[in-house]
Amino acid sequence: MITIIMGSKSDIKIAEKATNILKEFEVNYDVNVASAHRTPALVEKVVKSSNSEVFIAIAGLAAHLPGVVASMTTKPVIAVPVESKLDGLDALLSAVQMPPGIPVACVGIDRGENAAILALQMLAVSDEEIAKKLKEYRESQKNKVYNDNLEIQKML
Amino acid sequence: MITIIMGSKSDIKIAEKATNILKEFEVNYDVNVASAHRTPALVEKVVKSSNSEVFIAIAGLAAHLPGVVASMTTKPVIAVPVESKLDGLDALLSAVQMPPGIPVACVGIDRGENAAILALQMLAVSDEEIAKKLKEYRESQKNKVYNDNLEIQKML
Amino acid sequence: MITIIMGSKSDIKIAEKATNILKEFEVNYDVNVASAHRTPALVEKVVKSSNSEVFIAIAGLAAHLPGVVASMTTKPVIAVPVESKLDGLDALLSAVQMPPGIPVACVGIDRGENAAILALQMLAVSDEEIAKKLKEYRESQKNKVYNDNLEIQKML
Amino acid sequence: MITIIMGSKSDIKIAEKATNILKEFEVNYDVNVASAHRTPALVEKVVKSSNSEVFIAIAGLAAHLPGVVASMTTKPVIAVPVESKLDGLDALLSAVQMPPGIPVACVGIDRGENAAILALQMLAVSDEEIAKKLKEYRESQKNKVYNDNLEIQKML
Amino acid sequence: MITIIMGSKSDIKIAEKATNILKEFEVNYDVNVASAHRTPALVEKVVKSSNSEVFIAIAGLAAHLPGVVASMTTKPVIAVPVESKLDGLDALLSAVQMPPGIPVACVGIDRGENAAILALQMLAVSDEEIAKKLKEYRESQKNKVYNDNLEIQKML
Amino acid sequence: MITIIMGSKSDIKIAEKATNILKEFEVNYDVNVASAHRTPALVEKVVKSSNSEVFIAIAGLAAHLPGVVASMTTKPVIAVPVESKLDGLDALLSAVQMPPGIPVACVGIDRGENAAILALQMLAVSDEEIAKKLKEYRESQKNKVYNDNLEIQKML
Amino acid sequence: MITIIMGSKSDIKIAEKATNILKEFEVNYDVNVASAHRTPALVEKVVKSSNSEVFIAIAGLAAHLPGVVASMTTKPVIAVPVESKLDGLDALLSAVQMPPGIPVACVGIDRGENAAILALQMLAVSDEEIAKKLKEYRESQKNKVYNDNLEIQKML
Amino acid sequence: MITIIMGSKSDIKIAEKATNILKEFEVNYDVNVASAHRTPALVEKVVKSSNSEVFIAIAGLAAHLPGVVASMTTKPVIAVPVESKLDGLDALLSAVQMPPGIPVACVGIDRGENAAILALQMLAVSDEEIAKKLKEYRESQKNKVYNDNLEIQKML
Repeated sequence: MITIIMGSKSDIKIAEKATNILKEFEVNYDVNVASAHRTPALVEKVVKSSNSEVFIAIAGLAAHLPGVVASMTTKPVIAVPVESKLDGLDALLSAVQMPPGIPVACVGIDRGENAAILALQMLAVSDEEIAKKLKEYRESQKNKVYNDNLEIQKML
Repeated sequence: MITIIMGSKSDIKIAEKATNILKEFEVNYDVNVASAHRTPALVEKVVKSSNSEVFIAIAGLAAHLPGVVASMTTKPVIAVPVESKLDGLDALLSAVQMPPGIPVACVGIDRGENAAILALQMLAVSDEEIAKKLKEYRESQKNKVYNDNLEIQKML
Repeated sequence: MITIIMGSKSDIKIAEKATNILKEFEVNYDVNVASAHRTPALVEKVVKSSNSEVFIAIAGLAAHLPGVVASMTTKPVIAVPVESKLDGLDALLSAVQMPPGIPVACVGIDRGENAAILALQMLAVSDEEIAKKLKEYRESQKNKVYNDNLEIQKML
Repeated sequence: MITIIMGSKSDIKIAEKATNILKEFEVNYDVNVASAHRTPALVEKVVKSSNSEVFIAIAGLAAHLPGVVASMTTKPVIAVPVESKLDGLDALLSAVQMPPGIPVACVGIDRGENAAILALQMLAVSDEEIAKKLKEYRESQKNKVYNDNLEIQKML
Repeated sequence: MITIIMGSKSDIKIAEKATNILKEFEVNYDVNVASAHRTPALVEKVVKSSNSEVFIAIAGLAAHLPGVVASMTTKPVIAVPVESKLDGLDALLSAVQMPPGIPVACVGIDRGENAAILALQMLAVSDEEIAKKLKEYRESQKNKVYNDNLEIQKML
Repeated sequence: MITIIMGSKSDIKIAEKATNILKEFEVNYDVNVASAHRTPALVEKVVKSSNSEVFIAIAGLAAHLPGVVASMTTKPVIAVPVESKLDGLDALLSAVQMPPGIPVACVGIDRGENAAILALQMLAVSDEEIAKKLKEYRESQKNKVYNDNLEIQKML
Repeated sequence: MITIIMGSKSDIKIAEKATNILKEFEVNYDVNVASAHRTPALVEKVVKSSNSEVFIAIAGLAAHLPGVVASMTTKPVIAVPVESKLDGLDALLSAVQMPPGIPVACVGIDRGENAAILALQMLAVSDEEIAKKLKEYRESQKNKVYNDNLEIQKML
Repeated sequence: MITIIMGSKSDIKIAEKATNILKEFEVNYDVNVASAHRTPALVEKVVKSSNSEVFIAIAGLAAHLPGVVASMTTKPVIAVPVESKLDGLDALLSAVQMPPGIPVACVGIDRGENAAILALQMLAVSDEEIAKKLKEYRESQKNKVYNDNLEIQKML
């Protein structure tokens, strides 16, 4: 089980990148809008009532949500910084530069799909089914590149 | 009354810049170490039990503390980003780029003294004594520059 | 009473974010266009003739206006850096990196609404009516997120 | 079991931050120097011969090592960007901005200890012993802040 | 013979800038899509089976492809960082900041044509025909500027 | 007399901002396209055959043109960095960060009109007619802001 | 006559780079400490009472001084951004990114000597003596490089 | 034959990194100090009188030297940006962001040794002896990492 929290409804496009992957892997998840600043109690309720093994926190600007989630649990928290101002540099630095003791696992700017894959990799530590699917997924990515390669060699 | 919260004991030099100003103005303050990530409950206790009119939050790296304090109160929160990595750019952007609805009043990197003066300016909105002292302080700053000017003209 | 000064007529969209909030709170304000560089005398006239408790200065590029206003008063000055070139990084640094002694309260890039809320928080230090409205406003923001949360859980 | 790979012997200080944590948690690990550019075969040998559940890759400059490790496994890979030039911004962006499909879990610049804690959090998904120790560790961090708080209140 | 590798089919516009130059110079080339992260084996196959004198690697985001190619050959490798996020700064730093011992010859962001010209300059070290064509090409560039100069003097 | 050199015909919009000002001031100028890299001899010819008192050099990317012009004359050279990649930061730093001994007078990104005004200010050191017009121009700018101020006060 | 204004006594090292050049050229100057924020009236007094042909304004952090001086005169104003925080990027952007109509002639970070040379180039527009000395100074710089060249060829 | 040009005698440490490699490979080189801005004629003399197959240009700040050399020859030009201000970002962008048609082969900041290796790779296109030595050198680098790996495994 994976819990996704986005800081604002406007982050939905990035969240969908994650849910699409999770649907494809047939892994349960729940999705929440909960702002670290407007609704800290809702964030706490979502985190503390959850049985999820992994959290994904999606936020832009001063992206405090991943760090705030991490302050409420010792389970792994994945951060997705979202581009809004300054090309997303503000969100990236706000998410990744966590102090000693409270890590957050940051993926690239707007990389919702990678947050989902990383969450699946964490589950796969103890779930052979998911581990197997991850290898198949990697294989399918590989094949897509091989096909692109054939296609491009005809074009240029 | 002004409440100062620093995210880590290592921020003490920047906090002292603030307390030195507040002592000079004879305004009450309390100082706390409370980490947004390691001790969110302590932050909440400090903020919610406080009668202070203004909060000053001092933090480096992914400086979430000012925003977290702001999420717990509708009183004004002043942020002091502290230089630790990336010349303090991470702390500045984490502090200042707050989402709509939850402002933080950010001063410059390592500018603890300015946080104190800004807090005093807020109190002075309804405290004529402090307002008067702020004008005197500005005057003394002015005089210092005039003296520096005389001195430098003899030197170069 | 709050005085808003924008450095150029082109900053109107950002100023409107502020005035919309102030209208909603039924707090008096005046709005001015006064350039720190083209009309320093007008800036001085606006600032020195004003009885406002708080100033909001909105400017892009080398955003000197907030600092120039701060040099003319010991009342609190809120800076809104506006995105024009370099994603607004120039305006942000020009606004926030004030020298010791002359603070400016900087909010995020293009965050006119946050400047207004911060100004209201300052007034609320001694105005219980505004303090009460700020709590209600925070509550309404909270409710909006709760509604978004319900909505999103049906969508993804 | 956790495998740590550093791109150069000069990264040893950052690696030690990680191994100190892992020793404290009594979790097995191995440490390797293997350069993505000078010894890609050694990186491949380390990764493919390893039974570790999690990899930690530590590198500065154009920090390709985490991404190269991630290209060789579907297990989770944690990246620690190291400050060397440009305040570590080059290493951070090289580590975190991975393309869709191949995530890396990036922690802050020079944050070797956080990489270890994040790795432990991943193991704890299916290891209750480690999960328990992580909670105790979080508790000890909390207590340290509470003690710092008492101390600082006597000082300022 | 020049081998062009792009990290993703989406880099085709930049690759075409290069192939257009190479066609104009009538120099043989092959073009490949091979991802350093999704298909490291394909990258290795392309590089190790190639007889090309020079490699051009085109990639965006955490642009590891040029460095990965350089780790597999001692022939010169030209990097073209591609703009995707952060205005291409991530790709530029990932490409250019290579560690001691394994250089990459980086050209400007999106400068596929310059990668081709640089590759031709390398071939021209021992190929007088190409050297001659490069001088003619430079001459034609020069003439184009002279014509632009005449045209602009009539316009402004 | 003012000589304007743009590094590429594509800089024409920025050059026009300058020529519009110079036409308004009825000061003679000539405009040239001359690339520091493609046509260094043309740059030299333009600079060394010119009787102009001031040079304006307009260029984007690695904007070497202003520095190259400055290397050929001891007359003042004004640089206009042009936004092309990286929001114009590359052009700004390439233009302004000149080594000791060979200054360039850099204006803001895309600020062709300011280059012209600065050039006029230099001429006005010894030309009272231009000095007078500059004061009138400043006055007209001032009046425009006063009018904008009246207008905006009716709108918001 | 050249008027140098530094924003703070701490900028003296950069101001000395300028005065050393002006002494060498035997051109009159006066040096002032006048803060745009602490002593706007002193800045105005210095600027408006001056008969200087050119102004040099030296400042760090949010370097408003050059722009503020430019708002008070139509004579040319040279800005020297000083490194204090953020490697001087804050001062550079605050100085150079002036709005349309009010240019500032910005030189590189900490380049006091170049500000002086640029000021002399402006005077030389109508002062043949200075123009002649500038050519001699350029010649002496050239000779120094030729000597360095001979020396280095023996060393490496 | 390789020609090294540094923009200032102060770049000698970076130049020595290059000459040490070239000595080890027993390849002829000459070293020059020639400033693009102070001595453009010397740069031209060095470049146009040279029979070298490859040029290495080393410069800091607004690093125009590589581009200026490239404007004078169609042979490959390698740029080494040197850290002086802004962590070397100014030199990197000034060197690498060349316009279409005139490429420069940029290596990492302060990477003199990589410039030399890249130059050798270019010569090796038609010199089997150097090609063989490059493979041996790569082998020795590899062995050094393997030794470091053994050493570190005993330490941590």
